[in-house]
Amino acid sequence: MRAAIFNGPGDITVGERPNPVIQDPTDAIVRVTLACVCGSDLWYYRGESKHEPGAIGHEFIGIVEAVGSAVTTLAEGDFVVAPFLYSDGTCELCLAGWPAHCLSGGGWGNATGGGQGERVRVPLADGTLLKVPGTGHSDDVLRSLLALSDVMCTGYHAAVSGGVREGSTVAVVGDGAVGLSAVLAAKRLGAERIIALSRNPARQDVAREFGATDIIAERGDAAVEAVKGLTSGLGVEAALECVGTGESLDTAFKIARSGGMVGAVGVPHDSVVPIETVIFRNVGLRGGVAPARKYIPELLGDVLDGSINPGLVFDFETDLEHTPEAYAAMDERRAIKSLIRVGAA
Amino acid sequence: MRAAIFNGPGDITVGERPNPVIQDPTDAIVRVTLACVCGSDLWYYRGESKHEPGAIGHEFIGIVEAVGSAVTTLAEGDFVVAPFLYSDGTCELCLAGWPAHCLSGGGWGNATGGGQGERVRVPLADGTLLKVPGTGHSDDVLRSLLALSDVMCTGYHAAVSGGVREGSTVAVVGDGAVGLSAVLAAKRLGAERIIALSRNPARQDVAREFGATDIIAERGDAAVEAVKGLTSGLGVEAALECVGTGESLDTAFKIARSGGMVGAVGVPHDSVVPIETVIFRNVGLRGGVAPARKYIPELLGDVLDGSINPGLVFDFETDLEHTPEAYAAMDERRAIKSLIRVGAA
Repeated sequence: MRAAIFNGPGDITVGERPNPVIQDPTDAIVRVTLACVCGSDLWYYRGESKHEPGAIGHEFIGIVEAVGSAVTTLAEGDFVVAPFLYSDGTCELCLAGWPAHCLSGGGWGNATGGGQGERVRVPLADGTLLKVPGTGHSDDVLRSLLALSDVMCTGYHAAVSGGVREGSTVAVVGDGAVGLSAVLAAKRLGAERIIALSRNPARQDVAREFGATDIIAERGDAAVEAVKGLTSGLGVEAALECVGTGESLDTAFKIARSGGMVGAVGVPHDSVVPIETVIFRNVGLRGGVAPARKYIPELLGDVLDGSINPGLVFDFETDLEHTPEAYAAMDERRAIKSLIRVGAA
Repeated sequence: MRAAIFNGPGDITVGERPNPVIQDPTDAIVRVTLACVCGSDLWYYRGESKHEPGAIGHEFIGIVEAVGSAVTTLAEGDFVVAPFLYSDGTCELCLAGWPAHCLSGGGWGNATGGGQGERVRVPLADGTLLKVPGTGHSDDVLRSLLALSDVMCTGYHAAVSGGVREGSTVAVVGDGAVGLSAVLAAKRLGAERIIALSRNPARQDVAREFGATDIIAERGDAAVEAVKGLTSGLGVEAALECVGTGESLDTAFKIARSGGMVGAVGVPHDSVVPIETVIFRNVGLRGGVAPARKYIPELLGDVLDGSINPGLVFDFETDLEHTPEAYAAMDERRAIKSLIRVGAA
């Protein structure tokens, strides 16, 4: 089959990889229809995080092509959303709502095929895949379903971790696809005030579309002052950190009001938690790898009825053969997030 | 009046200080009956944190001796518990449940008199002091009311911040008075399993009395293994950090299960938050200076009806003139916590 192949930093090609086959009775084979590039893929692409050479990509939706003998809830032809990690749905951590930490779980890679390829072997298919009801979904809906695979759930996790609820005052640090999704998530959770930090007009537009009530173009200490200026000098109840750098985490803690929360989902790079702010201002920190498999069922209905449209983060698209372009567009910040059309829906 | 005086590290004396008087119409003057020494006072005593020379002590109960003209809820003769900070009860942060961050609040010191002295001027008295109903309380009840001034509320804050609830599996790092109070708090909040880390037999006894179901005498990595051994290898849902050292915070994060929380109330000294554990295992961090004024009303009834007895942390007592002994006993770990009898009840 055709698939994107990670050869090393800055070097993505598209070539032949073995077609995955059922190995365990709990496996399913999914033929990928849409995939995309994650901000975390960029860390690999830029050589800032390690990635094994070979299969790459962990966000995809597609059609079940085959199921193992122990799979009971899925059948050939089902249209499914795959979360970015697989999980059994039955272990103590899954049952506690933490499928990303499933005791039998794992991620996509050379052993399964990557999401940026024609087919993926999905272990623990019953616990992992979400069957999408209905048929004939519009392309807009399909794009939004793809966003549930990771980016929307990750933004949602920032907001949930930050304790966003009805009436909350929120700020989002980071105007990448995750940050924009966090804006949408905060809106869905009932936030009254949503301050987006962005200096990019296209991203500001998406932020507004997603529910941002205020946009701040400043950075660093000027951004902190601007957020305080909008919040009676107190800062926000929930500061959502969606970047992962030391500076962004620092900003998030500074704009959080005493007693507030930092909801953090950025993969940390040189990030230092200001423990004095935690203790002396009671600013909590929570977040991390999103429990996508938990959130997808909560969000699926909202996507299908059009009440949320997380697929708006995709502003670049290409086909599987041009996957390197999809990376380059994001790397050069020409795109918020790149969608890859892999196969027929 | 007589009062303890901080002259510098290792140097506490008892001497004369000016009798406090009403300065603002919202003030009250409280004649202290019982006071005590806080673990944080020890940081000053040991020279590990700065303290202004002069008045010291922030935990006390007593009798209202005078009130300013604007005080409406208190009168001369009222028996009150004072939280370790004063607060107005009306600002946005107080109303949000964070009186320790009151926009008009502050702490006890030279401007007010310290808790380890015969009298204290209490600013914002209506918002700060809690009137205790009834009369003729037993000495046990009085000791437990004194514990509400700080230590019990701080332990309670660790447990609340750690998300302890009915059925939780909890571990408490630290067997000082705050750690023991955190055990009692976890029990009150319905924790099913409470693992106390302590190698001191007297403190183990109090921990058991307060509701600890398991005691672990190991430290460092051996303690981590022991906690995992008691929790199916997963660790605890809530790890309560009640020490404030780098090692104790490290232990707390290691014994927390994925998706769990560290509830931290120790004043940080060289503490580094393992951000990778936060993000890759979804272990949250919350806690800090306790909102005692919020918790005291919740806990007061339980103290008065005897269903909690936080005063058991006091295992040394003396009078005001012997306050230096109270410090020495804690400094030398002869005492968990020292009570000071200041004046007649």
